[in-house]
Amino acid sequence: MSDRHRLSLAPIDTPERLLLGPGPSNAHPTVLEALSRSPIGHLDPLYVALMGEVQELLRYTWQTDNRLTLPMSGTGSAAMEATIANVVEPGDTVLVAVKGYFGLRLQDMAGRYRANVQTIEKPWGEAFSLEEIEAGLKQHKPKVLAIVHAETSTGVCQPMEGIGDLCRQHDCLLLLDTVTSLGAVPLFLDEWKVDLAYSCSQKGLSCPPGLGPFSMGPRAEDKLMARSGKVPNWYLDVSLLNQYWGSDRVYHHTAPVNMNFGMREALRLIAEEGLENVWARHRRNAERLWNGLERLGLALHVPSELRLPTLTTVRIPEDVDGKAFTLHLLNKHGIEVGGGLGALAGKVWRIGLMGYNSREDNVDLLLNLLEEELPAFRSSASAVAAAVA
Amino acid sequence: MSDRHRLSLAPIDTPERLLLGPGPSNAHPTVLEALSRSPIGHLDPLYVALMGEVQELLRYTWQTDNRLTLPMSGTGSAAMEATIANVVEPGDTVLVAVKGYFGLRLQDMAGRYRANVQTIEKPWGEAFSLEEIEAGLKQHKPKVLAIVHAETSTGVCQPMEGIGDLCRQHDCLLLLDTVTSLGAVPLFLDEWKVDLAYSCSQKGLSCPPGLGPFSMGPRAEDKLMARSGKVPNWYLDVSLLNQYWGSDRVYHHTAPVNMNFGMREALRLIAEEGLENVWARHRRNAERLWNGLERLGLALHVPSELRLPTLTTVRIPEDVDGKAFTLHLLNKHGIEVGGGLGALAGKVWRIGLMGYNSREDNVDLLLNLLEEELPAFRSSASAVAAAVA
Repeated sequence: MSDRHRLSLAPIDTPERLLLGPGPSNAHPTVLEALSRSPIGHLDPLYVALMGEVQELLRYTWQTDNRLTLPMSGTGSAAMEATIANVVEPGDTVLVAVKGYFGLRLQDMAGRYRANVQTIEKPWGEAFSLEEIEAGLKQHKPKVLAIVHAETSTGVCQPMEGIGDLCRQHDCLLLLDTVTSLGAVPLFLDEWKVDLAYSCSQKGLSCPPGLGPFSMGPRAEDKLMARSGKVPNWYLDVSLLNQYWGSDRVYHHTAPVNMNFGMREALRLIAEEGLENVWARHRRNAERLWNGLERLGLALHVPSELRLPTLTTVRIPEDVDGKAFTLHLLNKHGIEVGGGLGALAGKVWRIGLMGYNSREDNVDLLLNLLEEELPAFRSSASAVAAAVA
Repeated sequence: MSDRHRLSLAPIDTPERLLLGPGPSNAHPTVLEALSRSPIGHLDPLYVALMGEVQELLRYTWQTDNRLTLPMSGTGSAAMEATIANVVEPGDTVLVAVKGYFGLRLQDMAGRYRANVQTIEKPWGEAFSLEEIEAGLKQHKPKVLAIVHAETSTGVCQPMEGIGDLCRQHDCLLLLDTVTSLGAVPLFLDEWKVDLAYSCSQKGLSCPPGLGPFSMGPRAEDKLMARSGKVPNWYLDVSLLNQYWGSDRVYHHTAPVNMNFGMREALRLIAEEGLENVWARHRRNAERLWNGLERLGLALHVPSELRLPTLTTVRIPEDVDGKAFTLHLLNKHGIEVGGGLGALAGKVWRIGLMGYNSREDNVDLLLNLLEEELPAFRSSASAVAAAVA
């Protein structure tokens, strides 16, 4: 028996943060209360009823009738992997439309499932046109087209009109990343003819990270059922999960019960507010932010017609050390704003207004801080910056 | 916009349960408090420090120096799959020692990673002898031997003395399931020469389900580094995770921040009580339960020398409807006791005394209920049973 790694720690004492970055976003107070209830068993009749409520409210939030709609017991990345793992068979061509970091991740994942991965690409900050997508489908004849609705790395919202019809014409499944749009930005899985979708808990849903909403339509289900072998991922195998989340309630794994308490409350709040009101609120607060930023002379990275209400990319002024300013916001004001990822690293800040945090007071607070404290971080004012920090 | 799935629900109102089944077990009250703190960012310097504390305390609890010790962002089953996914290459022989349900799951998982899966088997309720394991290693020459330390389906604790040495002699990695032993039953990863181990959060650690502790020793790390291709599972790829949990802190996925708040508190409580005291408490309360059950004339399924202090399998008396009695305990007293799984379905009850729930008062409460209310469920007393229910 060794005490080598026996740390003696004080009880946890994390501060309150205002999370205005790419996520996690703050959780709603009643979601945090739900999270801290005593666990019940994952096969308890009361939990089984709660599972049904979570599934039904996910269908509402995604605007889908898909039977196979459930939260994966992992983060959004696990749900992303579940969409690939369940339908991709070795040698299947998967076409990934890459216009940011999360397109690259889909590409990496599909390769691990031995797909023939092909890509079409756009610069980070742009979206695909229908013509570009059609050309890709014609050239590569994929079994699956994977595309990101709301690119968290760039702040672009991909227009979805017509993409589903093209995929059906080319006998291809449409796989959609809705991580930064679910519960925040207009999203219609069935109307858009989306066959596979995933999301996360910590953005539009105002829940902490830890669950990955997943939905699979009938065409994707057919491909899953026609597989020649088992899904090469036990934990994310929807044919097994469906026995637990479906009517049989067969034990698969011990569900993250408390996270699902939180998810149920998060979805309940969205249903209470009404999805159209939720979407309008996100739009209204984003526009308030965009107008304010432009008034301060800051440049937005994405043209207005493609801008995502949940995540705004702001170009870091040439004479500002972007990292120093975000550290100042965090350490002095407890406010988190994100930096750039991948091709946009060091070039943009990422400001999130998601779920519970999409509020006028948060927008005004951040705009005021930018107005009053950013000037000290201009390199011409570096001596002042040192004093403020 | 459709309101078809827009349920109108009351706020969550789950009852307090006493979870004396195979898990989840009740969480410690201060763990639930930690869980409900406001999230902070997964790349926040304070969260990075917290990650280090969780890793270090997991090393203490597992008695290991393994660098690659971290909680997977999923339940115990995800951590189980991580041990297989990272080291198994197609065609590798994996020998699974099956003596219960979770051995079967390891077999299923290893097959999905295209291993040549071989098994040795024992009846559900027994353990393997060193000779049986040596014979298996000689016959199958595996790259990995997978075995369950604490079989939650049978209540057997596998004696571990000598198994690690045999594995080294036969140039084979030792993979150990410690789901129902971590933080409750004597466990020495390094002394036992275990190369890969996994566990869960909701048993000995007194945390809700949702995290899967994982540990990988240097020999397993070598096999991971020598792989010819990428790990065929992105979410559980330890070579990527190590960049996040290791010194680089490179973004991989958004960590389940709040679950890790709870995990830090759960591990802190264990370090405060001291591992030897924790193990002794579990042993003491289990013996109190075993003695009480035998005094009531109930038969224990596992011989005393192999019994697991965390989970006791009790044979359901021939003239009792086991399911009716557990439903009675749940509905009338809010107490959950488990039924049998697989080969033991309908034959045993499974009583768990794990973590925060391993307490004298819980043992006495359950023994009293068995003494006073079980007689009414004897078939000779079915009329009385109907009245009580």
